[in-house]
Amino acid sequence: MNIPEKGGRELEAILGKIGDQVVQAVAKTSPDLARLLVEYPFGEIYSRPGLDPKTREIVALASLAALATARPQLKMHIHGALLVGCTREEIKEIFLMTTVFAGFPAALNAMDAAREAFEEVERAPSPEGKPT
Amino acid sequence: MNIPEKGGRELEAILGKIGDQVVQAVAKTSPDLARLLVEYPFGEIYSRPGLDPKTREIVALASLAALATARPQLKMHIHGALLVGCTREEIKEIFLMTTVFAGFPAALNAMDAAREAFEEVERAPSPEGKPT
Amino acid sequence: MNIPEKGGRELEAILGKIGDQVVQAVAKTSPDLARLLVEYPFGEIYSRPGLDPKTREIVALASLAALATARPQLKMHIHGALLVGCTREEIKEIFLMTTVFAGFPAALNAMDAAREAFEEVERAPSPEGKPT
Amino acid sequence: MNIPEKGGRELEAILGKIGDQVVQAVAKTSPDLARLLVEYPFGEIYSRPGLDPKTREIVALASLAALATARPQLKMHIHGALLVGCTREEIKEIFLMTTVFAGFPAALNAMDAAREAFEEVERAPSPEGKPT
Amino acid sequence: MNIPEKGGRELEAILGKIGDQVVQAVAKTSPDLARLLVEYPFGEIYSRPGLDPKTREIVALASLAALATARPQLKMHIHGALLVGCTREEIKEIFLMTTVFAGFPAALNAMDAAREAFEEVERAPSPEGKPT
Amino acid sequence: MNIPEKGGRELEAILGKIGDQVVQAVAKTSPDLARLLVEYPFGEIYSRPGLDPKTREIVALASLAALATARPQLKMHIHGALLVGCTREEIKEIFLMTTVFAGFPAALNAMDAAREAFEEVERAPSPEGKPT
Repeated sequence: MNIPEKGGRELEAILGKIGDQVVQAVAKTSPDLARLLVEYPFGEIYSRPGLDPKTREIVALASLAALATARPQLKMHIHGALLVGCTREEIKEIFLMTTVFAGFPAALNAMDAAREAFEEVERAPSPEGKPT
Repeated sequence: MNIPEKGGRELEAILGKIGDQVVQAVAKTSPDLARLLVEYPFGEIYSRPGLDPKTREIVALASLAALATARPQLKMHIHGALLVGCTREEIKEIFLMTTVFAGFPAALNAMDAAREAFEEVERAPSPEGKPT
Repeated sequence: MNIPEKGGRELEAILGKIGDQVVQAVAKTSPDLARLLVEYPFGEIYSRPGLDPKTREIVALASLAALATARPQLKMHIHGALLVGCTREEIKEIFLMTTVFAGFPAALNAMDAAREAFEEVERAPSPEGKPT
Repeated sequence: MNIPEKGGRELEAILGKIGDQVVQAVAKTSPDLARLLVEYPFGEIYSRPGLDPKTREIVALASLAALATARPQLKMHIHGALLVGCTREEIKEIFLMTTVFAGFPAALNAMDAAREAFEEVERAPSPEGKPT
Repeated sequence: MNIPEKGGRELEAILGKIGDQVVQAVAKTSPDLARLLVEYPFGEIYSRPGLDPKTREIVALASLAALATARPQLKMHIHGALLVGCTREEIKEIFLMTTVFAGFPAALNAMDAAREAFEEVERAPSPEGKPT
Repeated sequence: MNIPEKGGRELEAILGKIGDQVVQAVAKTSPDLARLLVEYPFGEIYSRPGLDPKTREIVALASLAALATARPQLKMHIHGALLVGCTREEIKEIFLMTTVFAGFPAALNAMDAAREAFEEVERAPSPEGKPT
């Protein structure tokens, strides 16, 4: 299996339908960025065996909450984290740690993104949407 | 057990002797910051049951590598991560993910902090120093 | 008076009704973060005698404007600054300084948050709403 | 020609009508920031001979995309870049480079700002609006 | 008095000899940046009447500690803050607030810069060097 | 020519011997990151035809100066910029623009990295070392 195939498989495994929607939306403006998104983060990095999918999503949430500059991607990875088996309590626990590393405003805004993502799950119940 | 006691216990459990050294160094300039460091991050946050110590150190490494503004704390938590059971390969895998979320320069500098921390472990072999 | 009590008192003194609303909103997603917000920033830090409330709000505005990643919290502290006695001219003067430390985009966006906060004050005249 | 005159001329040359709108909007809250915006970035920096206008807009786009904290200013400079001769393909190429220096989320959000700016150009066709 | 003169006067008033040394050091690589540093931050912004010099240094310290990317400038402004009348306790209090807005690592590194600046004052006793 | 070959060729074209040294240094800690550095930034991005090498280095300098968190990489790309034909005056002009987008501290530290890189060129005269 080559890199684009591995990337597509990982993207679907971690982000489900959302991943596909994001890639298609990006492709309208930049097919190159859409392709690189599949191939590099998912095909090269996520597909590596060194960490399991749940741990990778924990790394994603911690990184994005600390950066505090990428709410759409943070929300997308909250959905991804739920999909690969993080509970809501674990996600909220990560954002409590954000107060330590990046301060209270970053943590409050990450928690607000969690609120929004959790509400989206409520409204569109799906296998990954079961409250935890 | 009260918050300062819980904080002291967590600090030692996660960072070992390094934690104590950091607290004592900070205390020379600001006893208040030293006390708050024990009480808030360790006494309030790390001591919570919601995530195990290894996962908390993964969150710490991901956050600090993405921020790219706190090399001393990143190095300290690389030592902490080794102490609570992360392998070197897992730590390096987290920093490969940093390329995705915060770019290559942040990842290269985190990997360089890992190199330095790993070398410190080599030079001062201790129980947590066993290469993985 | 214990930390939670001190925190609640400080929160009210500095942010008025807005502080209470924020805490209640956060509590719906994370009662823990709501509690920590009262206890740590307000109970531990704001309640210290070393700086007066007005100076603390100046520190808040300077920090948040420079970070440029926390517009809701910046707006909240613009209201807080007005409430503890900063004039509009002083707030705008802080954001002129943001051009020096964090660049023009950060300053322009902080000034736009000020515009929005000032307009909210106009629409809902209250004791703290007197234009300065 | 003095600094304010040079600034006004540069602002118009690079940002067209948008520049004037931004200055007038800022002036309602802070006439000082509006004046400094004309005089410093445009009067002092952009008006220097050392780099041509197109290169200056490339620097602006690279800087703002990497910072990832100033979407309104990024969008404004996408319009500016088109006006001084950057093609859409060149702008998108800069944001592909953002993946390297600041990570995929920053690049994705910059590309989304480009999408929005390009759509604005479509809706309000003007000399600079010719798709490239 | 024109802008360059006002800038030179402010620079000396706030940073003393250190300001002059910084400007001369920068001038070796970029006389333009040295000139702009005198004229814009000091000639245009610091010289404004809206905030007193001590408050301006509080804004500087809060901004630079939160950004966590400019240790040389943070240290310079710690010296400046001492020179215009901030006490060591006030400076440390600002950095305790940094834990709230930007997290513990940023606060720890700002406090370490304070330690270094305070030690420099001890070694080279001068009028502003009196411990507070 | 495949991606690793393209990456190796681009790396050498833009960074000369320095690129090779960086890759080899990284490889000691993480052969994976060394490989990804060649393949993604250089093999996938730099090797694209959409921007010429000089423009790509301008994007690199603007991005890294604005981020202000990656001095080693900034210095490396100052060497790269000289190698692909940027003059010292152009590099300094980019960093003057950094004052606008990211503030004076970021610009001062970028200029100091330029000073250091220029001095390295003086000490080790090479084809790309001719002062401009």
